[in-house]
Amino acid sequence: MGASGWIGQHFARLLADHPFFEDPILSAGPKSVGKLLEDVWLLPEEGPPPSLTARTLVHTTPETLESEGVEVVFSALPSDEAGPLETELARRGMAVFSNASAHRMDRDVPLVIPEVNGDHLNLLKNRGKQGFIVTNSNCSTAGLVVALKPLLPLLKPREVTVTTYQALSGAGYPGVPSLASLDNILPYIPDEETKLGLEASKMFGSLQNGAITPLELPVYANCARVGTREGHLEAVVVDSKSEVSVDSVCAAWAGFRPMADVREGTLPTAPESPVIYRTELNRPQPLLDRWAGTPVRAKGMAVTVGRLRVQNRKILFYLLVHNAVRGGAGGSVLNAELALRKGLLGD
Amino acid sequence: MGASGWIGQHFARLLADHPFFEDPILSAGPKSVGKLLEDVWLLPEEGPPPSLTARTLVHTTPETLESEGVEVVFSALPSDEAGPLETELARRGMAVFSNASAHRMDRDVPLVIPEVNGDHLNLLKNRGKQGFIVTNSNCSTAGLVVALKPLLPLLKPREVTVTTYQALSGAGYPGVPSLASLDNILPYIPDEETKLGLEASKMFGSLQNGAITPLELPVYANCARVGTREGHLEAVVVDSKSEVSVDSVCAAWAGFRPMADVREGTLPTAPESPVIYRTELNRPQPLLDRWAGTPVRAKGMAVTVGRLRVQNRKILFYLLVHNAVRGGAGGSVLNAELALRKGLLGD
Amino acid sequence: MGASGWIGQHFARLLADHPFFEDPILSAGPKSVGKLLEDVWLLPEEGPPPSLTARTLVHTTPETLESEGVEVVFSALPSDEAGPLETELARRGMAVFSNASAHRMDRDVPLVIPEVNGDHLNLLKNRGKQGFIVTNSNCSTAGLVVALKPLLPLLKPREVTVTTYQALSGAGYPGVPSLASLDNILPYIPDEETKLGLEASKMFGSLQNGAITPLELPVYANCARVGTREGHLEAVVVDSKSEVSVDSVCAAWAGFRPMADVREGTLPTAPESPVIYRTELNRPQPLLDRWAGTPVRAKGMAVTVGRLRVQNRKILFYLLVHNAVRGGAGGSVLNAELALRKGLLGD
Amino acid sequence: MGASGWIGQHFARLLADHPFFEDPILSAGPKSVGKLLEDVWLLPEEGPPPSLTARTLVHTTPETLESEGVEVVFSALPSDEAGPLETELARRGMAVFSNASAHRMDRDVPLVIPEVNGDHLNLLKNRGKQGFIVTNSNCSTAGLVVALKPLLPLLKPREVTVTTYQALSGAGYPGVPSLASLDNILPYIPDEETKLGLEASKMFGSLQNGAITPLELPVYANCARVGTREGHLEAVVVDSKSEVSVDSVCAAWAGFRPMADVREGTLPTAPESPVIYRTELNRPQPLLDRWAGTPVRAKGMAVTVGRLRVQNRKILFYLLVHNAVRGGAGGSVLNAELALRKGLLGD
Repeated sequence: MGASGWIGQHFARLLADHPFFEDPILSAGPKSVGKLLEDVWLLPEEGPPPSLTARTLVHTTPETLESEGVEVVFSALPSDEAGPLETELARRGMAVFSNASAHRMDRDVPLVIPEVNGDHLNLLKNRGKQGFIVTNSNCSTAGLVVALKPLLPLLKPREVTVTTYQALSGAGYPGVPSLASLDNILPYIPDEETKLGLEASKMFGSLQNGAITPLELPVYANCARVGTREGHLEAVVVDSKSEVSVDSVCAAWAGFRPMADVREGTLPTAPESPVIYRTELNRPQPLLDRWAGTPVRAKGMAVTVGRLRVQNRKILFYLLVHNAVRGGAGGSVLNAELALRKGLLGD
Repeated sequence: MGASGWIGQHFARLLADHPFFEDPILSAGPKSVGKLLEDVWLLPEEGPPPSLTARTLVHTTPETLESEGVEVVFSALPSDEAGPLETELARRGMAVFSNASAHRMDRDVPLVIPEVNGDHLNLLKNRGKQGFIVTNSNCSTAGLVVALKPLLPLLKPREVTVTTYQALSGAGYPGVPSLASLDNILPYIPDEETKLGLEASKMFGSLQNGAITPLELPVYANCARVGTREGHLEAVVVDSKSEVSVDSVCAAWAGFRPMADVREGTLPTAPESPVIYRTELNRPQPLLDRWAGTPVRAKGMAVTVGRLRVQNRKILFYLLVHNAVRGGAGGSVLNAELALRKGLLGD
Repeated sequence: MGASGWIGQHFARLLADHPFFEDPILSAGPKSVGKLLEDVWLLPEEGPPPSLTARTLVHTTPETLESEGVEVVFSALPSDEAGPLETELARRGMAVFSNASAHRMDRDVPLVIPEVNGDHLNLLKNRGKQGFIVTNSNCSTAGLVVALKPLLPLLKPREVTVTTYQALSGAGYPGVPSLASLDNILPYIPDEETKLGLEASKMFGSLQNGAITPLELPVYANCARVGTREGHLEAVVVDSKSEVSVDSVCAAWAGFRPMADVREGTLPTAPESPVIYRTELNRPQPLLDRWAGTPVRAKGMAVTVGRLRVQNRKILFYLLVHNAVRGGAGGSVLNAELALRKGLLGD
Repeated sequence: MGASGWIGQHFARLLADHPFFEDPILSAGPKSVGKLLEDVWLLPEEGPPPSLTARTLVHTTPETLESEGVEVVFSALPSDEAGPLETELARRGMAVFSNASAHRMDRDVPLVIPEVNGDHLNLLKNRGKQGFIVTNSNCSTAGLVVALKPLLPLLKPREVTVTTYQALSGAGYPGVPSLASLDNILPYIPDEETKLGLEASKMFGSLQNGAITPLELPVYANCARVGTREGHLEAVVVDSKSEVSVDSVCAAWAGFRPMADVREGTLPTAPESPVIYRTELNRPQPLLDRWAGTPVRAKGMAVTVGRLRVQNRKILFYLLVHNAVRGGAGGSVLNAELALRKGLLGD
């Protein structure tokens, strides 16, 4: 759903030839219905539009989707539309994997990044035939929590300060006017700073007795839009409870192989190394690192970190996350893969 | 000195028709000697080159400058050249106002922003006929300390976290290649993060018994180069000892009229309000705020702040400083004006 | 009219403190009515919004304007709205100076650039109390005809080939999405290529027996949008009937002082030299030359030409025109000034 | 040779796993010798550096290359170095495929694009054991002649006017400073306009009696540098001797399968369709079309054309050519493939 937009098209790209899911039905709003995907294609840098069986954008409703036997819905809807629609889809028994923010903080909706809190999907167990919603996080939050996850046991952070340099595609298309962006920075992205704190706390929280208790971790965030196409850069300062060395932080990142722990088999969109540490003085850079991640299907799913410094008990570093892949469509596809492996998507 | 470079030309612009100083001699390196200022002009946005009496770039040495009776030198030299040359100029009795970093941390060199620590110029009193060096700070540091100065008594900060979005002109000309900058961010500026901490501490320090004792104030900095022409944006998080409200911070900024306190008469390049608080949700922006400052001669000398938030005991805001004016040539010109008013430049 | 848009705000800027016209009433569409000019200001590079007496954007109709005794209307309306509205304003006796394309090719509407065909205003003589419409040309056409005008007698051109590099502001605000513009060029601007030919022919035409006979001059145009803020660059190739030298072309440009010929007194917005020839190898450039024109009130009204070459009987050169000033609001203001001097605006 | 530069690295990329040629030796200047290709990699958008066997940049001389038995040299040297060095390499029996301009107009050096004038390689026949130089054309010229080639019989053009929008990478690395490029266009590229005419005439010329007679075809060119990363856009106006329709021009492009005619087997880097006509109103665009060309090894080798119009006897259109692939390294690799097929590279 939302196949005419930036994230929706990343969904189309990632779901083409997917080993777990069949070619998607492309659902779009009234303006785009009837057009071919190639006629509204927004992602030239990612290559030509995928050659799907069904290339025409169509109108769908929860009723039509249910009657067609659709089991899995990927949602790239604007948040205001996503709210009621996703609820209705779940009520009708569908599994909804959503990039929208509408339900992220709902008590019964897991907000998941497999490498960070894949176990939160267990919130959905024992639901019988019911549908459900699983959301991925905000694009900036995704980068932050993936990079922090392996450091939590080491640093036991008291607080985190994060400042973002967010790419234009984070605002969708048409998004930011060129006259507002060229030779400029926009130091305001509605609600972004609040989301960073709330979502990180929920994802780092623990699932107990069928509910998620968020981790108490203050996040101080400043978010700005800069003139890059894709890839959010973030400057992070972590206040550590314990003294740590640069080496121990690097070791924690290097040893981070969370999907091996999951032991539910390999997920096609999962990167071998979710965090890649670059030793060069001037990395990560959006242009060089946004597509990090192996194997090919996991391109754009790795978070690149670099410029690590320790000063007093602060850990300082930069990270780069592909906002539309790891922080968008790719995140939801990976969630669906994990849900399937966990047996949440029927037989 | 250094009149063929970006900062050097801002000097030329600001010194043209200056009420205190005569038209400058334009000193430049061998490649530019003999050329006219208009032939090497780098600042089209600031208008055409100023119509100085002496428009030809010339070669100078400390000897020639001394023999011509030059009393005041403005230096926009690269730091490695500036080191020995500025020392020699001072030794020969000249007053050197420098934008170079070479001598900023020297014990006998005041690192000054008049509105912040104009009294540090008193370090130079009782020197008889000797020359001296006065430096302005690093461009990012200038914005930070001007914005923080009026908040110090209120916040008694324990530490400051700052993340920069620095403009291309901060790297001089030719500086950053377009292929490295377009659709990219470079998260590394050599030594910048260290300078921010050291220089802020020195400028906030106190002059006692002929020496400056730096303020103990840890600064955690992350510095990156983005694709804007001029104007450094900075995201600041201050850890406050006391609880404060947004209103009290705004009041401190609004009431900041430091040059009135100096009571040494008006300085032509001093802005009426050194800190301008914008209430709009999406300010400050490089494109809109870099030239802040009144009167006309103080354009680019005001630091614009905005997006103020208080979260727990943290104060968060964005600031914008014109890197080449307040954080460069304008800073040194203002220092020279204050030095003259204080009687440090002879009769 | 249209004061919330890019050209409308250039009108506001140019009409502030205008010696001939009183401060404008700012008319805007329903979305902007009630807002202050400073709250919708789009032109930071041109400085802060002008301090007009009436700073609030208001709703107007032909009726209200007539009843308030408005005599002169400047229109920056979108073309589809401009069509009927401007006709109605003229019908009610007002003089309409329009930047819209709706009426440019109307038989009874002069399409005027004073330096090129100021005499076409005579089409409006002997109209008694009637109102009228005067339009300025398309932004690209303005640069072309001003540069060509002094060359016509010399070259007697058989045809002209022109290729444009048009700035983002030519598409208004919000205009081109940043994701469509960054690292890209859009080789299509609707109707632009046709307008270039038709409008140039009409402006170079002769007024005889109360009608304008267009000059037969084929214009072959290719128009593209590039990622600059303001200032259209154009590459021109003129096919000359006679052999000419570089020097004779330069002399024709240098000797072009058309407003002196008009002998109706100085017009405040008219540049001393409408065409400025730059001898540098790499000029004109949008960044350096868009604000060409003296005196201050005529900034952006001069067309800059350069890189002149003669090859066989072709004359090749580049020109730069400020699309929103000479090719927009400034053009209409200058037309109104000439109309007033010619006695077309009442007593 | 020249492996540390932009074109040199495109060579490395294209020669990796090449079916005809073994992994290259990477020759570079003194600054880069000893570095790994990955440490100087300039082409992040094209992916990571190829995994060559020999990844270290080395110093070479004609002597060392000869003694190592090197038979084929690809040269991405700066033109001034290329002149004598390439001559010496050929003298020592090597086949030099060069992107440098130094020898392009030499009588005994074919200037070749296989689809345009592959038969010019016959100039090298019957040379015994001697080496030789084959050059590809200037990057802008490559796009122009490929697009024009299939139109020549149809249009019998009298003259061609071309205006370029050339990408930053055409100036190499570091190339254009970001402060000269951001929000700007540079309407001057040394010698480019002359090259366009001379090289097109030579390539369209006929090989008779062991010499190439250039086609008499005046080219009127205006060349400018714009702020895109890769892909030169060109606006073309062809003056046709005969009246033609849009359809007949499209048919000529669609029917252009020159490598089939060559009948020397498939060349790996040759695109199936050297000219791709896009029917969309706003194509070609650098961002969308620079990588045109199938199969995978021919990505960036197709020239995309669009916006075709016929006006009087002028044919107007836009074209896009990947300056560093078709107009650079790819062009030379394709030349070498053809030379091998033609038996010019020994057994």
